[in-house]
Amino acid sequence: MRALVFNDAGHPVQPTLQTDRTAPKPGPGEVLIRPTRMGVCATDLELCKGYMGFRGVLGHEFVGVVEAAGDGQSKKTGKDWVGKRVVGEINCVCGTCDMCKAGLRSHCRDRTVLGIAGRDGCFAERFVLPAVNLHEVPNNVDDDHAVFTEPLAAALQVVRQLKIEGRPYITVLGDGRLGLLCAQVLSRLNATVRVVGKHEPKLRLCEKWGIPARLLGDVGLRKDQDIVVDATGSATGLTTAMQMVRPRGTLVLKTTVAPGSTPPHTPASDGVKPRAERSEAPDQTSIDLSPLVIDEIHVIGSRCGPFRDALQTLSAGHVDVVSLVTRRMKLADGVDVLRAANQPGALKVLLEP
Amino acid sequence: MRALVFNDAGHPVQPTLQTDRTAPKPGPGEVLIRPTRMGVCATDLELCKGYMGFRGVLGHEFVGVVEAAGDGQSKKTGKDWVGKRVVGEINCVCGTCDMCKAGLRSHCRDRTVLGIAGRDGCFAERFVLPAVNLHEVPNNVDDDHAVFTEPLAAALQVVRQLKIEGRPYITVLGDGRLGLLCAQVLSRLNATVRVVGKHEPKLRLCEKWGIPARLLGDVGLRKDQDIVVDATGSATGLTTAMQMVRPRGTLVLKTTVAPGSTPPHTPASDGVKPRAERSEAPDQTSIDLSPLVIDEIHVIGSRCGPFRDALQTLSAGHVDVVSLVTRRMKLADGVDVLRAANQPGALKVLLEP
Repeated sequence: MRALVFNDAGHPVQPTLQTDRTAPKPGPGEVLIRPTRMGVCATDLELCKGYMGFRGVLGHEFVGVVEAAGDGQSKKTGKDWVGKRVVGEINCVCGTCDMCKAGLRSHCRDRTVLGIAGRDGCFAERFVLPAVNLHEVPNNVDDDHAVFTEPLAAALQVVRQLKIEGRPYITVLGDGRLGLLCAQVLSRLNATVRVVGKHEPKLRLCEKWGIPARLLGDVGLRKDQDIVVDATGSATGLTTAMQMVRPRGTLVLKTTVAPGSTPPHTPASDGVKPRAERSEAPDQTSIDLSPLVIDEIHVIGSRCGPFRDALQTLSAGHVDVVSLVTRRMKLADGVDVLRAANQPGALKVLLEP
Repeated sequence: MRALVFNDAGHPVQPTLQTDRTAPKPGPGEVLIRPTRMGVCATDLELCKGYMGFRGVLGHEFVGVVEAAGDGQSKKTGKDWVGKRVVGEINCVCGTCDMCKAGLRSHCRDRTVLGIAGRDGCFAERFVLPAVNLHEVPNNVDDDHAVFTEPLAAALQVVRQLKIEGRPYITVLGDGRLGLLCAQVLSRLNATVRVVGKHEPKLRLCEKWGIPARLLGDVGLRKDQDIVVDATGSATGLTTAMQMVRPRGTLVLKTTVAPGSTPPHTPASDGVKPRAERSEAPDQTSIDLSPLVIDEIHVIGSRCGPFRDALQTLSAGHVDVVSLVTRRMKLADGVDVLRAANQPGALKVLLEP
């Protein structure tokens, strides 16, 4: 089968399209999935720069059909799922560690993550996932919408983690894929939401949605926002965010910044630089975190979110994901897919098998 | 009068003992205070390295007697205070900005801070402070205890900001002045508290108080602590703390890290390096903050705290501050006072006028 793989075949290590990869077999409790639509995320691009030291099939955003099931014990695993149209949570967990037992399964100590850590991903004609990770897609949510379930869940996680009191001023910093999803879900709260970004065309999408949007250069950094969501995917995002949030305000981090990687790893963020710039220029910057202490800022790290809520949101038509689709490509296009997602103006690149 | 001053008289700028400084006059709403005991804080040492760009009389920890009052309107200002033994909050606020009106006076937009920002401090024979900042010291709290009100309040701020559920595991990272105060107040909660530090003699103080204490090299970094308080005063403290706190755990930042300053500014922390090391070696390190996002850590910046609670805690004898006193010196000892506080094993250096 075809699969977009990041492994040691090339020197330097680089993503390649394999055409003769053996299809995986579902193990106990797992199902075999034929993806019908896949989405490219900034994390995929970061993995190709060495993030997480990942090797294997890329991809973690998908909607697909269950084709077969491995052996399973519980009634929720196994044949029940065959033939159903599904999306799937990406963290594959042990169920027995302290985190799993505490109900924090996405923080499982022994997890693998679809196409990100220790497990082949979905940019292939077939892939496997534990049946417990699956969610059936409602009939009124088509594939082009359902493929946004994972990044939309990540945006909804921000809503779930925030405590909204009064009518706070919220700035979403960053106009990439994730920032625009965050802005849409946050604008449904009792809050005054704006997006601050760097790309006029992306900010015009906000205008269409009725969400105020401004260029970063045009706004004052006045420490007057109750909540700032850093979805920039840039190492400088946090510094800017600290200049925007008020004392005792809340700063939500969706950007993961690793030293030596500028700009860094943000699921669904944009603006990832090509490989060469990173490997040759080790990070010389360091962030002054003293404003966090002086202004007694509350920082909330935020990662994966609730798939069920995301599917309900898509089913209810509460977000516009169609406008986020920049290109529609084929798995056979291989690494061109990653290049397309890496373009400055790109939002979501969708893949068909 | 005598005053320990950091100003541009010397080249390079360095602290000096002035003996002929004119005593200040209290303005409207202010009082003139004769300090009877003062404490040296790591922030004082950091100011002498350029932190905050401060110029003027150093010092913000004191207990003293009110000698005179300027003109004041409210009954709480003015003559009522004369003759009383007081401690004083260090943030001098406008009372009219959005922060003051929101009850967040310590975050006043236009604040000056005693001996730290825009206002002469207490390392002098006399100094002035707004009368609204004052708290009368209970009779059973002597000067050697009362002088700890400000750093103890900073430690109590951690308690005030935390939400304790169940019986959490708490690690206080750092065995300096502030770490040891934090450990003492946290150990009174329904929690399992330990101190992790680098200095055997300081950790033995914990043993005396019945608080488990371990050397950093002897503990595993297992992401298993519910709460970690970073009171290291070191740029590397945050990285260690992120390796100790569990996913979805809470990390309290008492350390302010400014780039180019290693180790950095921590009120009441120890281990501050001499001037030369800093100015000649710009910070080459940068911190990988991605664990905050991946593990969805809650970070709480924490600064000044409640003086009233601190005085009650001292009055009730709930903390041992006497054991923290390393040296007792005179204002006339001048810069030797700062050198003494800068010694590796030093905890609190107290000053008498």
